[in-house]
Amino acid sequence: VSAEGPAVATPPPESAQAFQSLLVTTEDGITTIRFNRPEKKNAITLDMYKELIDALHHAGKDDSVITVMTGSGDFYCSGNDLNNFTGIPQGGIEKMAKDSGELLKHYVKAYIDFPKPLIAVVNGPALGVSVTVLGLFDVVYATESATFHTPFSQLGQSPEGCSSYTFPKIMGNAKASEMLLFNKKVTATEACNLGLVTEVFPDGSFQSEVWTRLKAYAKLPPKSLALSKQLIRSKEKEKLHAVNDAEVERLIERWLSDECMQAIMNFFQAKPKL
Amino acid sequence: VSAEGPAVATPPPESAQAFQSLLVTTEDGITTIRFNRPEKKNAITLDMYKELIDALHHAGKDDSVITVMTGSGDFYCSGNDLNNFTGIPQGGIEKMAKDSGELLKHYVKAYIDFPKPLIAVVNGPALGVSVTVLGLFDVVYATESATFHTPFSQLGQSPEGCSSYTFPKIMGNAKASEMLLFNKKVTATEACNLGLVTEVFPDGSFQSEVWTRLKAYAKLPPKSLALSKQLIRSKEKEKLHAVNDAEVERLIERWLSDECMQAIMNFFQAKPKL
Amino acid sequence: VSAEGPAVATPPPESAQAFQSLLVTTEDGITTIRFNRPEKKNAITLDMYKELIDALHHAGKDDSVITVMTGSGDFYCSGNDLNNFTGIPQGGIEKMAKDSGELLKHYVKAYIDFPKPLIAVVNGPALGVSVTVLGLFDVVYATESATFHTPFSQLGQSPEGCSSYTFPKIMGNAKASEMLLFNKKVTATEACNLGLVTEVFPDGSFQSEVWTRLKAYAKLPPKSLALSKQLIRSKEKEKLHAVNDAEVERLIERWLSDECMQAIMNFFQAKPKL
Repeated sequence: VSAEGPAVATPPPESAQAFQSLLVTTEDGITTIRFNRPEKKNAITLDMYKELIDALHHAGKDDSVITVMTGSGDFYCSGNDLNNFTGIPQGGIEKMAKDSGELLKHYVKAYIDFPKPLIAVVNGPALGVSVTVLGLFDVVYATESATFHTPFSQLGQSPEGCSSYTFPKIMGNAKASEMLLFNKKVTATEACNLGLVTEVFPDGSFQSEVWTRLKAYAKLPPKSLALSKQLIRSKEKEKLHAVNDAEVERLIERWLSDECMQAIMNFFQAKPKL
Repeated sequence: VSAEGPAVATPPPESAQAFQSLLVTTEDGITTIRFNRPEKKNAITLDMYKELIDALHHAGKDDSVITVMTGSGDFYCSGNDLNNFTGIPQGGIEKMAKDSGELLKHYVKAYIDFPKPLIAVVNGPALGVSVTVLGLFDVVYATESATFHTPFSQLGQSPEGCSSYTFPKIMGNAKASEMLLFNKKVTATEACNLGLVTEVFPDGSFQSEVWTRLKAYAKLPPKSLALSKQLIRSKEKEKLHAVNDAEVERLIERWLSDECMQAIMNFFQAKPKL
Repeated sequence: VSAEGPAVATPPPESAQAFQSLLVTTEDGITTIRFNRPEKKNAITLDMYKELIDALHHAGKDDSVITVMTGSGDFYCSGNDLNNFTGIPQGGIEKMAKDSGELLKHYVKAYIDFPKPLIAVVNGPALGVSVTVLGLFDVVYATESATFHTPFSQLGQSPEGCSSYTFPKIMGNAKASEMLLFNKKVTATEACNLGLVTEVFPDGSFQSEVWTRLKAYAKLPPKSLALSKQLIRSKEKEKLHAVNDAEVERLIERWLSDECMQAIMNFFQAKPKL
């Protein structure tokens, strides 16, 4: 884990939980959940989804004031590990699609129901589901060189993470469709202008500027923060759960389609630089 | 039809349907519906509304991957032909207002229900209903000199095309009201900053840049595109139909009001440069 | 009342109503409601809330075409007068919180139900509830040096004025949370980019430019304007009332919490420069 940013190189954390693919710490009133597979660009395996769900549930209940998600190494997160689609398990491909759908649904639920301010510290490129769930965060800080890419149709798939609802809400259809339908990769500054990102910082001072700010946030009245966040979320919680369900249903259909299988085979044959 | 842009001057289309006021072609996986009354700035007559509804229904069912709307000549579309209001037919003005309202409702329905990615290539000034329905498109590309103008209150009327819902959603009330209530004409760049337009291109390279991009889009997995678009639209389809009904109802009342009749008479007397 | 801007220094108004803390005039088809406690930065006392509700009800029914809110002196409005929290009345603190909540609810209702175009002329710093209700205005013009600040969590409180719904709708969660949860003060230009403000004007020409424009607006067909505004509002009126109820309920809980009492005591001890 030598590839982490400076924030983790600081004094030993008050508490740390043991995960295989994550680094989770709590200090200064902040629980940090760090994607920790830098050698795989923090791609999310099936086991890692389960760990993330656990980590989010735990962070929601611990005594921290805010929760932060970030990545180890150069990437924030490269999204769903496409190796999740290889190796058909016992039960066949239909069971695999259904099980993966259930897991994804629970993963997104953990964001929808998160009870405290949730802040993304996007330290590098973000792809797929790690981008789409950003619409469910309260604040998103990005380093200047970060990029945001959701190449769903290119892979024969469809949007998830509630992005089919949150992205049009945040930036309007005309901008959202270019990302969600037509695979446009946007820069941090573009994402900030679109409203997906709160603020962009120079790469050189990103970690120090952001963590200074986060530590100040964690000193604000905790109940006021949590209750205000819940008040904002309550207006669309029911809607978000319905969106999540519909997205996962559609995605299961997609995963079982010839179009998607062909697109993923092409991906492994071409090994494109995502 | 010598006033068309370069895109139509290219090789003969795979298929072309016969319309009086439109030019509809399908090639390279793209169905293009072109407003084709350049001598009248592509103003929409009652017959043209019917042709547009037919053309959209057909495009939704044909084997094209995406559908594009654009205009012949210098204008994109100058909106509702105000001559639609002259010459009271048998049945009187109340029947005329009701019939026009029904027609408009069906026209807007065709956009709400459109099942594939729908892209506007705004080649020049856009007015009235041709602007308001843009909120129902998936992508809107505009040439630098295009303008967007919805002078409803000036004509004693009220917003349609679902703009009373989509515009505040896209740009917020503070920006939407200036367009929808106070007749502000916005430039392509302003419309892009507001989120109504996806991207603006220089006039000189508009056609070539846009069509290169559209041809690439049309090579993406078709079902993934259509199902993703439908997924996004499904969240608000019911709402959009209710908005359309309410807008048309209000507009019929407006058309029969003294305020509106006076404003339209003033229009014909003053012949303002729209 | 010598601290007013030039707009009030012009010819005598057609009509003027008598209020203690407001200056309300009607001329040229415009009813202007002016916060008029410049020596207290136009902070809103309990009596002033009542006068504002009365003034809005009256303006909604008079024969003016548009209604404008602005401030006397250098401030637009510094929000809720924190002295409202001092001096526990007969009935105890619980009754005080409940009564204040009812008053706030009616105040915000007056904005939700306002039947004509409502325009804010933000002549200086705006704070708290004077910022949050801006999401319920149709147009917001701001002078360049105006600022927008909603320090709720800092005071142990939670958002009101329907901002927990309107702010995320206008600017997306990532931007709204920084204002509503983390006390970010934004400049007029930033607020304009976020969609909260329609347009920003140089301080030197603010009053003349804005009032020229408003006088032109007031000459548009009045019914078309009012009915168009009502059409836009009708889509979310029910939602807005539910949001207002939920926000006030949460705020009453907050006012009675130790966290909030402590934060307000700290405020009076520290006398921070808001």
